[in-house]
Amino acid sequence: MKGSFVVSVKSFAEASQAVRVADVIEFRLDLFPSLPEYDRIRTEKPSIVTIRLKEDGGRYEGEEEERLELLRKYSRYVDYVDLETRLDDEVFLKFEKVKIIESYHNFTETPSYEELVDIVEAKRGDVIKIATMGAGKEDVVKIVKLLTEYDDVVAFLMGRKFAYTRILSFILGSPFIYCSLSTPVAPGQYDVYTARKILKSMGVI
Amino acid sequence: MKGSFVVSVKSFAEASQAVRVADVIEFRLDLFPSLPEYDRIRTEKPSIVTIRLKEDGGRYEGEEEERLELLRKYSRYVDYVDLETRLDDEVFLKFEKVKIIESYHNFTETPSYEELVDIVEAKRGDVIKIATMGAGKEDVVKIVKLLTEYDDVVAFLMGRKFAYTRILSFILGSPFIYCSLSTPVAPGQYDVYTARKILKSMGVI
Repeated sequence: MKGSFVVSVKSFAEASQAVRVADVIEFRLDLFPSLPEYDRIRTEKPSIVTIRLKEDGGRYEGEEEERLELLRKYSRYVDYVDLETRLDDEVFLKFEKVKIIESYHNFTETPSYEELVDIVEAKRGDVIKIATMGAGKEDVVKIVKLLTEYDDVVAFLMGRKFAYTRILSFILGSPFIYCSLSTPVAPGQYDVYTARKILKSMGVI
Repeated sequence: MKGSFVVSVKSFAEASQAVRVADVIEFRLDLFPSLPEYDRIRTEKPSIVTIRLKEDGGRYEGEEEERLELLRKYSRYVDYVDLETRLDDEVFLKFEKVKIIESYHNFTETPSYEELVDIVEAKRGDVIKIATMGAGKEDVVKIVKLLTEYDDVVAFLMGRKFAYTRILSFILGSPFIYCSLSTPVAPGQYDVYTARKILKSMGVI
């Protein structure tokens, strides 16, 4: 199993705990009490910087131009930056020195398998992360099929009911499983201890 | 989650333990030290009688005619009898007073999705159980698709590597998850405590 345990953190207090249990730390800067100095997010473990907009499930409410500028500055101190699929190619081109996790969120539905394939095949990131709202089991099939056909894809359905698709994604070869330290930052997210325990009990790790 | 935890037992000692932790007890009579009196398998929990042939992963080596006769006699004291897909319709018709779990095993490969559909659609049992050898992730997709499209199907891939498909099958609505009490009676099988722990940690039960 090659996947890494990502722990999303909302503060430096969480980050210092996460260092001990995560393979990768995701700084969810939109959830931080205030934006830190750029170089404060430098850390000993591989890391991701993410500033999530409200419409993508985050809390950032500033100007988009400013958000991208912030991401650019923070990205000098991390390994990965999270950029949304909707962003233009030229935005992606401005992040040359850091790996990119391209993220697609859909809080309404899970698009058709063909649409998901289009998103994956048009990806500009090193990794593509697809998180969509699940309505039924047919959405599970789409996700499983996608994970089977493509590498470097993280794909799962949002919500408590489909939380298990996060475990499934990891088992089927996703590079990352996104976990919380304790309180979930997204619905259905497992804390890192639970995720490890589940995968260990299943004989997967 | 409507599924039941089946515990497969190899002796009466195991059966008496299983009664406390299982929803359903499967008497794997081919694994019993010797064949018990017919009515000794009557038990307080719902139960299944199974006499598995060598070619299906069991240890029964007697005559087929005798095996069917034994199944008929034991089936008076249980809720379900396990009958293999290969058996003729007339055999199925002889088990009128008991529910039937029709089982399909393939130790070589997982047939195409279309073949699996044929097996499911031609089923004569109340439940169909499909256990096949997995080669790759494309076999996981077949299983997931099948579980999504049909009810009353238990379907998983054999072997340690694909053990997680047993959990997946349960999550996707299988009526049963087959567990051991401690030592697995099939490769990749979880013991009932582990299976419950996994599903509980996942937030599924």
